[in-house]
This record gives sequence, structure tokens and C-alpha cells, in this order.
Amino acid sequence: MSDRIRLGIVGYGNLGRGVEAAIAQHDDLELVGIFTRRDPATITPLGRRVDVHHVDDIGALADGIDVVVACGGSKTDLPEQVPELVAHCCVVDSYDTHAKISEYFAAVEAAARAAGTLAIISTGWDPGLFSLNRLFGEAILPAGQTATFWGRGVSQGHSDAVRRVPGVAAGVQYTEPIPAAIDAVRSGTRPELTPGTSHTRSCFVVLEDDADPDAVRAAIVGMPDYFAPYDTTVTFVDAEELAADHGAMPHGGVVIRSGTTADEADHTIEYRLQLGHNPSFTASVLVAYARAAHRLALRGETGARTVFDVAPGLLSPRSSAELRRDLL
Amino acid sequence: MSDRIRLGIVGYGNLGRGVEAAIAQHDDLELVGIFTRRDPATITPLGRRVDVHHVDDIGALADGIDVVVACGGSKTDLPEQVPELVAHCCVVDSYDTHAKISEYFAAVEAAARAAGTLAIISTGWDPGLFSLNRLFGEAILPAGQTATFWGRGVSQGHSDAVRRVPGVAAGVQYTEPIPAAIDAVRSGTRPELTPGTSHTRSCFVVLEDDADPDAVRAAIVGMPDYFAPYDTTVTFVDAEELAADHGAMPHGGVVIRSGTTADEADHTIEYRLQLGHNPSFTASVLVAYARAAHRLALRGETGARTVFDVAPGLLSPRSSAELRRDLL
Repeated sequence: MSDRIRLGIVGYGNLGRGVEAAIAQHDDLELVGIFTRRDPATITPLGRRVDVHHVDDIGALADGIDVVVACGGSKTDLPEQVPELVAHCCVVDSYDTHAKISEYFAAVEAAARAAGTLAIISTGWDPGLFSLNRLFGEAILPAGQTATFWGRGVSQGHSDAVRRVPGVAAGVQYTEPIPAAIDAVRSGTRPELTPGTSHTRSCFVVLEDDADPDAVRAAIVGMPDYFAPYDTTVTFVDAEELAADHGAMPHGGVVIRSGTTADEADHTIEYRLQLGHNPSFTASVLVAYARAAHRLALRGETGARTVFDVAPGLLSPRSSAELRRDLL
Repeated sequence: MSDRIRLGIVGYGNLGRGVEAAIAQHDDLELVGIFTRRDPATITPLGRRVDVHHVDDIGALADGIDVVVACGGSKTDLPEQVPELVAHCCVVDSYDTHAKISEYFAAVEAAARAAGTLAIISTGWDPGLFSLNRLFGEAILPAGQTATFWGRGVSQGHSDAVRRVPGVAAGVQYTEPIPAAIDAVRSGTRPELTPGTSHTRSCFVVLEDDADPDAVRAAIVGMPDYFAPYDTTVTFVDAEELAADHGAMPHGGVVIRSGTTADEADHTIEYRLQLGHNPSFTASVLVAYARAAHRLALRGETGARTVFDVAPGLLSPRSSAELRRDLL
């Protein structure tokens, strides 16, 4: 019998595949099953022999799973699935609708407490690692300013918005921080930042055959909330160029805390991520938090948690003594 | 009666003064006393009316203190004082002798368990915030390389070593990372780094009247461990220039994790500190961990802890619900 932590994956898109790959990088973790809403026969796992089941069968199989990594979307999948999944076993997710996190937390908390399981919600990098750095910055340097910049990277939400514009056959949107805004925060001048003075947006668009480029461009740059507040550029490309040059999913960003201690000394804390593939990195964070969820559950803890509630040592497979010796 | 957390300071040098100033930046924290080995009458606290006591009197006053911030040196003060202090109340410190942390932890752990108190040792930025980032990097990207670079900043240990050289009247040593080494780690090429390929050392030295500059320079650059492995420069200055240009205590550095996920995507996590005044910033970290120590003790926890054991949310004065709403 294995003493590895047994993980399941619910939802097998980019993130689910990333989780499968990430699990294989850890000797103490084991993938015991992939669960999908699709016909399991249509799913081909990446590189290893692993059973694929329908998600409706997870209740019957939950005894063999320590933690499920929920890899669905935040809009509808996770709010529907996670309160049900925690009825069966512990869960980690990367729920990322910032405005609804309190409501989502309450729903997962109630369901997990009732079932005696534990869930860590909203892991990943933002929310997740960036959130932690916003918290550390504010707690350590209470007199100061925190700013978060995203990119350069592909935003799925904004790419979807571009693709919904009539006349657009395909498209990708990059979010880019404005270097002068980063420099201003870093310098400690505490600038007043707006969305439009922090980021620009670049769209690479393939037109449908009969589309009017000027109308498409106007529809994109004028779109309220998504593009109107920003300096937005639209570049028309053909399908081959889009596939060749814009098929990757890089992302990243930086959280900067600039603060002043009571002796008038200025300090800057800067946390920067540069990610070759956004879903792979998010998956890597999820998997480390799955380990932590299992350990918290072993201690008898139940309910919902976030990255703020998890002692960092729980993320590592190494013992506390080893961590103190080698990393402190 | 105040419901603020009542803090004491043991040791009133640069760090102790920084802690006094940092406490004043937090509404939920209160400084109730400074404890010194010197004659208390010789101590003038910075800006506020606060009682100064001899450290031997702390036992009689411990009932009025929630957490003591131990601000002595790591070489002899903390190993002597902290196991005694935890007999009376909870303690946080910034013990930074990396090679002896395991031994120090065991001594504090035994004393704190026996007394039913709690101590968080080795907070600050290295050990401390840098340690956390070494841990996160390794746990999230298990296939990769972590490198820590320090500076540009004043190293007290190396400055002391310079000042012990015969013929040196005064001196300051700066540790500086080598930019090409940082770039190499960031790029993911995973270079083999040695002390000498990672950092250089710059010394600014005031000579005694009859000293031989060449002999002093040779004694510094050839000093085993401290300077011999490094590209070390020695610049002779007069006392006025040293005071005017080298009296500040800036420091900082960067922890970089470069790693590859199983899909061959490369990722970089970079945590950078730029500190105007090293003791003030270290003090700010100590004070946030003092809050956490009090909260852990309120839960009935006892023994020794490090930054690895402390859930980040405990550092903030804000409630979990507020943190989820505003920072997640």
C-alpha cells in the first residue's frame, strides 16, 4: 500500500492537464483518477496510465482519494462543483472571481464543515501567491502603497471578449503593465493609479472574410470596462500568424509594496512572476496546496481555508527540521 | 484597560530602536517597557514616554507583557537570553546564525514547552522573508534552481572584520551581487555559482595615522572566508567622508527560483527587497511576527516556531473575512 497522498483531478482542460503533469514532479503525490463531465472514453490522459471516470461517480470512489484538485472555471463550474465535492473529500481550487470570493468561501465553508472535510480555495498566483505578497507588504510596512501589475500575458477573459465581437474569427489579448507606472510605484512616490495608467491592452485579431476592419477595431477599443478605459491596440493578422506567434500562454506580473518606516527610511518589496505557461504554473501551485490540505485534514481540521490560513511549511514535502536546516 | 497587544523590547541598540518606532505604526500594538543590561537611567527612548527597566527585572513585570521582542545579537545575546525570556513570556527574535539554527531552535523549544509559552525565532528578512521565498519556490517548482543574492548593502559581520585589521581606524563593507550572476539565474540556465561568482565586496577604510595602506589592503583582501574568495576592493577615505557617505545602513537582495514544469515551460519567481535602513525593516518584520506569536499563544500553542510554521494571515491586524475581501 502506498503512503503517497492520493489526488484526483476534476475537469480535464488546460489546467487539469497541468495538474496531471505537476503531480508527476512530486514523489509523495499520486494521481489516482481523472473525473470529467464528458464521456470518459473521449479523454486521453497525458503520459501515464490513469483511470478516467465520470464526475458523477466520484462519491463511490472518494474513499480512495485524499484530495481532489478542482480544475473547472470560476464562472459556473467551481461554484456548482466544489460545494458538492467537499461532501466527499478534501478539495483545492483556484477560484479567481475576486468580487465573489467571500460568497464562494461561505458556501464551501458550510458544505465542508457539514461533511467534516477541508477545502483550500483560490490558490494559484492571483488570487494566491500575489495575495500573500499583498498581505505581507501591508502587515510589515503599514505606511505605504501596494500595487499589482499583470503581464505581459494572455488574459482569457479579454481574449474571449475580443472573440465575441462580430467580424472576429479568432483573437488573443495581451495585458501589459505600463513601465512608467511600475517605476513610479517602485520609487515610492505613491502615484494615484487608474486602470488606464497601469496597463495597456494589445489584441491580435483574425477577421472573418467579409468583416470591416475599422468597425471591428472600433467595437473592440470602445468596449466598456474591458477596453474603453485602456490604451488598446488592435493588430490584424492571418490565422497562420496567430497560430505561430500567439499560441503560447505566457503570463506573470509583479506586486510592489513601497513603504516608509517611522525613521523616514524607504523600503520596497517586490514579488515578480514570469511564467512560460500560465495553466502549468497555476497547476503547480494547486498541487503544493493539495499537499497542505491533506496535512490540515490529518490534523482534524475542517471547513474552508485560503492561502492566508496555511502555514507555508505545509506546502513542502520536507520535514520541519529539514526546512529549518536547509532553507531558513 | 487596553485590548492592545502589550510588547516589551529586550536590548536597545539599532534594532531595539527600530522596534520601538515600528510598534508606533500599529494601532493594535502597545510598547509597555524597554529592558536593558545597561543602567536603565542611561537609556533615552526615542519619541514616547516608556518605562526602561533592567533586564533582570523582567520576571516581576512579565504579567503585563504579552510578547517580548528580543533585539540582542545572535552571537551571544540571543542564545543566552531567549531560553530565559521564554520562561516568563512569549518571544520573537531575528536570530540569524544560519549554521546554528537547529541547535538554537531546540534550546528555545525545550524552554518554551516547559514554561507553556511560545517563541517565533529567526524572523526578519534573511532568515525570514527570504527563507519563505526559498520554501515557496522549491515547493511549487520542484525542478529548478534557487539562488539568493544579498546587497547592495552593509554587512555588519564583514565591517567588523575590516575594523579588526591592524592599522584600520574605521571602515564599512558593502556586499554587492554580481549582475551577470543574477541574469544567469533569472534566464534559467542554472549556472553553478560559487561565493566569488555571486558577490563582490567593497570596503571603505579610514587608516590609522601610522598605518601602511598596502599592508592593510593585503590583510583585508587575503582574509580567509571573509574576503579571499571574493573580488574585494579597498578604498581609503578620511573620517569625514566615511561619516558623510557611508553612515546609512541600506541593504536588500533577491531570491530567485527558476524552474521548469513537466510541459517544458520555464518559470521564474523573484522576490526582491530594497531597504533604506536594514534594522528598521528587520524591526518591522519582528513586530508583525510578535502579533502572530500572541495569537498563536491565545490558541494555547506552546514551543518554538519559525516563519515556516506561521499562517500569513496571523501577521495582519485585519480579520480573516476582511483579508479575503480586500487582499485575496
